[in-house]
Amino acid sequence: MNARSPEAAPSVTRVSFVASASSEWTVEAIRAVRGSTLPAASGLARLEGSEFTTPADATWILRGVRSNERYVGQDEKRRLSTVQEGLGRPASRRAALIPIRKSDAWWELAQDERRAILEERSAHIATGARYLPAIARRLYHGRDLGEPFDFLTWFEFAEGDAGAFDDLVGRLRETEEWRYVIREVEIRLARP
Amino acid sequence: MNARSPEAAPSVTRVSFVASASSEWTVEAIRAVRGSTLPAASGLARLEGSEFTTPADATWILRGVRSNERYVGQDEKRRLSTVQEGLGRPASRRAALIPIRKSDAWWELAQDERRAILEERSAHIATGARYLPAIARRLYHGRDLGEPFDFLTWFEFAEGDAGAFDDLVGRLRETEEWRYVIREVEIRLARP
Repeated sequence: MNARSPEAAPSVTRVSFVASASSEWTVEAIRAVRGSTLPAASGLARLEGSEFTTPADATWILRGVRSNERYVGQDEKRRLSTVQEGLGRPASRRAALIPIRKSDAWWELAQDERRAILEERSAHIATGARYLPAIARRLYHGRDLGEPFDFLTWFEFAEGDAGAFDDLVGRLRETEEWRYVIREVEIRLARP
Repeated sequence: MNARSPEAAPSVTRVSFVASASSEWTVEAIRAVRGSTLPAASGLARLEGSEFTTPADATWILRGVRSNERYVGQDEKRRLSTVQEGLGRPASRRAALIPIRKSDAWWELAQDERRAILEERSAHIATGARYLPAIARRLYHGRDLGEPFDFLTWFEFAEGDAGAFDDLVGRLRETEEWRYVIREVEIRLARP
């Protein structure tokens, strides 16, 4: 809405993933898992706030929002909350950003069909939970923003858990749910 | 993303509800049902497209997107598709825009809790279906955009069905689901 009418604060936290040299995270690899890749970058910053950020030296920027749960049920939510740990742990010197876009066929499914594929048949939530608290993560949504990716999935872990991370994403890519992914890029990151 | 990297077409259709004198729909009434109202306007346009529209003579603009189903199951979806009719029917000389914002308490619920309140305990989908095809409708989402309203709900109907429309929204406002509404404005419209 424009300034002439009362505006409430945004309900959602916004994130800008900014590819630029002067960033907290050093890019170790960018690889297309499915569909086209992203341009090369030497560093990546994850900038959360009430507004989107557009630094002048950005090579590219991906946008998203933290929003409500779309599939997690109350029992799952309760169990996850007892084991997961937050981002920013000092030992988390490795991270990954995995932007994902799903097909129109996925988005045209009804809610119960998507939930059945995602969890009852692909165990997406349960598989992620098995790697907690080692692999901390955060999900951002970009679809309603008209972004090129529906999801920006962010993971942080210790160097010694990099193998567990590979194992986790490998399992997710063997599922029925993953057949609906039409573009996925894996960006691996490190900080000193 | 910026222009330096490959951009896919937006997955969603965008809508701008523009309050301005020179519009298809004449505003008959604007009334706050809960929370603060919207500024007075004489006309309203519903502009759908791949981009948001910002006409120079707009008094205010509300934004949203058509997006995937969040609660409707496949059986409900199938039944709705057999009875509902599209927007723009010649006999639909009356319309209503009802922007709605729900509380943080609603959005913090897990998916299954929200579904249970919305349908199993409030019969939101079933109630809407009872008024089909007379009351045609379309739902737009604004929450992930950081808009002041989570939903922009649009209804079209014949003059003779205005009583049925009042009945429909009256029923929805008596439900458990509606207790989570913190702001709702009803804008009633007509075209000659």
